[in-house]
Amino acid sequence: MINKIALAGCGNVGTAFLELLHKKRALLDEKYGFKFEVTMVTDLMKGTVVDPNGIDLAAALDMLHKKNSFKGFPQFDGSFVETLEKSEATILAEVTPTDLKTGEPGLSHIKAALSRGINVTMTNKGPVAVAADELQKLAEECGAKLRYEGVVMSGTPLIDMLRHGMAGCAIQKIEGILNGTTNYILSQMTNGMTYAEALEKATELGYAEADPSGDVEGWDAAGKVAILAKIAFDKIIHVGDVKRTGITDVTPEKIKESLAAGYRVKLIAGLEVTPLGLYAYVQPKEIHISHPLASVEGATNAVTITTDNLGDVTLIGPGAGRTETAQALLTDVIAMA
Amino acid sequence: MINKIALAGCGNVGTAFLELLHKKRALLDEKYGFKFEVTMVTDLMKGTVVDPNGIDLAAALDMLHKKNSFKGFPQFDGSFVETLEKSEATILAEVTPTDLKTGEPGLSHIKAALSRGINVTMTNKGPVAVAADELQKLAEECGAKLRYEGVVMSGTPLIDMLRHGMAGCAIQKIEGILNGTTNYILSQMTNGMTYAEALEKATELGYAEADPSGDVEGWDAAGKVAILAKIAFDKIIHVGDVKRTGITDVTPEKIKESLAAGYRVKLIAGLEVTPLGLYAYVQPKEIHISHPLASVEGATNAVTITTDNLGDVTLIGPGAGRTETAQALLTDVIAMA
Repeated sequence: MINKIALAGCGNVGTAFLELLHKKRALLDEKYGFKFEVTMVTDLMKGTVVDPNGIDLAAALDMLHKKNSFKGFPQFDGSFVETLEKSEATILAEVTPTDLKTGEPGLSHIKAALSRGINVTMTNKGPVAVAADELQKLAEECGAKLRYEGVVMSGTPLIDMLRHGMAGCAIQKIEGILNGTTNYILSQMTNGMTYAEALEKATELGYAEADPSGDVEGWDAAGKVAILAKIAFDKIIHVGDVKRTGITDVTPEKIKESLAAGYRVKLIAGLEVTPLGLYAYVQPKEIHISHPLASVEGATNAVTITTDNLGDVTLIGPGAGRTETAQALLTDVIAMA
Repeated sequence: MINKIALAGCGNVGTAFLELLHKKRALLDEKYGFKFEVTMVTDLMKGTVVDPNGIDLAAALDMLHKKNSFKGFPQFDGSFVETLEKSEATILAEVTPTDLKTGEPGLSHIKAALSRGINVTMTNKGPVAVAADELQKLAEECGAKLRYEGVVMSGTPLIDMLRHGMAGCAIQKIEGILNGTTNYILSQMTNGMTYAEALEKATELGYAEADPSGDVEGWDAAGKVAILAKIAFDKIIHVGDVKRTGITDVTPEKIKESLAAGYRVKLIAGLEVTPLGLYAYVQPKEIHISHPLASVEGATNAVTITTDNLGDVTLIGPGAGRTETAQALLTDVIAMA
């Protein structure tokens, strides 16, 4: 069977996904029996190309690299649903920009696909944070599969580990460094910079956005906490209900004091089973240097999962990056096929 | 469908597996749709009980805890194959003691099961190190499944991560702390003990065996390297062909020098793709304190996997323990069902 892949959103991650598919075509067939064509690419800025028999991926990538656009190809002019139907896709890879409040436009794209029995993989956190349960039910009703390895820790396989690798374990607690930007800033402050200097450097390097509040006030990490609450504990927690403190009040003095006492200050995104229910938070915490999370530096992410059968298991890996996130889409499409 | 589980070997891990199955029966059904009966338990010392309709697990565990034996139950007197056939098992959990040279008695048990279409999970390293390829082929020919999450890092889901979580990545290098006993000894030497003192303490705590050579000379880690060569690189490497240096020549002076220079001495079990082929080794190495492996202390295990798409991913977790290893069997039986 040929998997027909539709891609919604062709920014950094979408482009890297097309590159991986192109580069690994032979290996995917040989090692996993995964045969595919890309039958649709749509991007608000770059245009829309559809061919149910498969787009010429080498030519499309060439045009993307040279002109940052698909507009040299014949354009398909129709709604998202019309485009998707025309593409005869069996898998939608949804990588449009994240909106943690509405989940759009990804949410509509995903519903359109699932309701037509099309499997969906996404790296867009919005739809998962807003409607994970609804989407899962829709997928089950329509006999479609839904995976989103890339929404937390990019391609580092945390979600697969929670769902499958640790099957049979009861999870008691999760503590993670889930936002690379703030971890980079805190690492630089540990090396002596002020908050303002570290933020400026993070912005220069492209880690922080022009408006950094989503990162430094803990919203991005809170979105990931909401997603992990569903995956690890089957609980719905809204992003706004995560107890949230950012890093804007962390001072170099505080960091220096902690260091002297043998601790590192980290922005911890956490979930913990308590007698009062599941406690969800994002908060700067002092982590003892003997703990695996203490030595996680820069933009790297990490999570420690405390369980009944295994005690603590820690996973450390990239939390962002175009190829790293595209890798999550690749694992998902292999798993779904 | 009711999964019928046969257990071969009922020492610490086998007993812990029965305890987990008993404790989690309701959860396994609810969360994973996994229904089961244990229809056979056989142990050289403790006896053999078979009932194709299901052994009374509460009574069996009670007898095991009180008398360390099943001999209060009616005993089945037959060969392993006769016992297995009588049990009508659909899954064999093979946890007899490891023999890295012959793979026996596990190897014969596993072949008997697979050739009858019975799925197999094992924590016994021997059969995998000796005959992973042969067993995989037999499983495929006979339409049976074969999993062995527990042979490396106990229930820490390394093998599942290599096979599924990182699907699509090319692995370039693996560096791991895969033997808890030697890591414990090196940790104690870092804290000031001599090698002899640390070994004595490890023996007292039950980490090291009366003859510690399997651990301290790197044989155990070499067996794991051979297993990972097959899983991560699809290459057959015999345990004897792993370049192997143990920790017996590591001196407190060497450790002190390394510490002063910002390094920790760790027994690293590794695999690396080189222009001359796959290089497999076990060797004490200096690891810089900024590397996640440097802070892995005591009996904990850890692996850093270097890949094309994700860069470095590190997994840290228990490497041994009765419940931790039984958890691997539990994940495997859930995945196979």
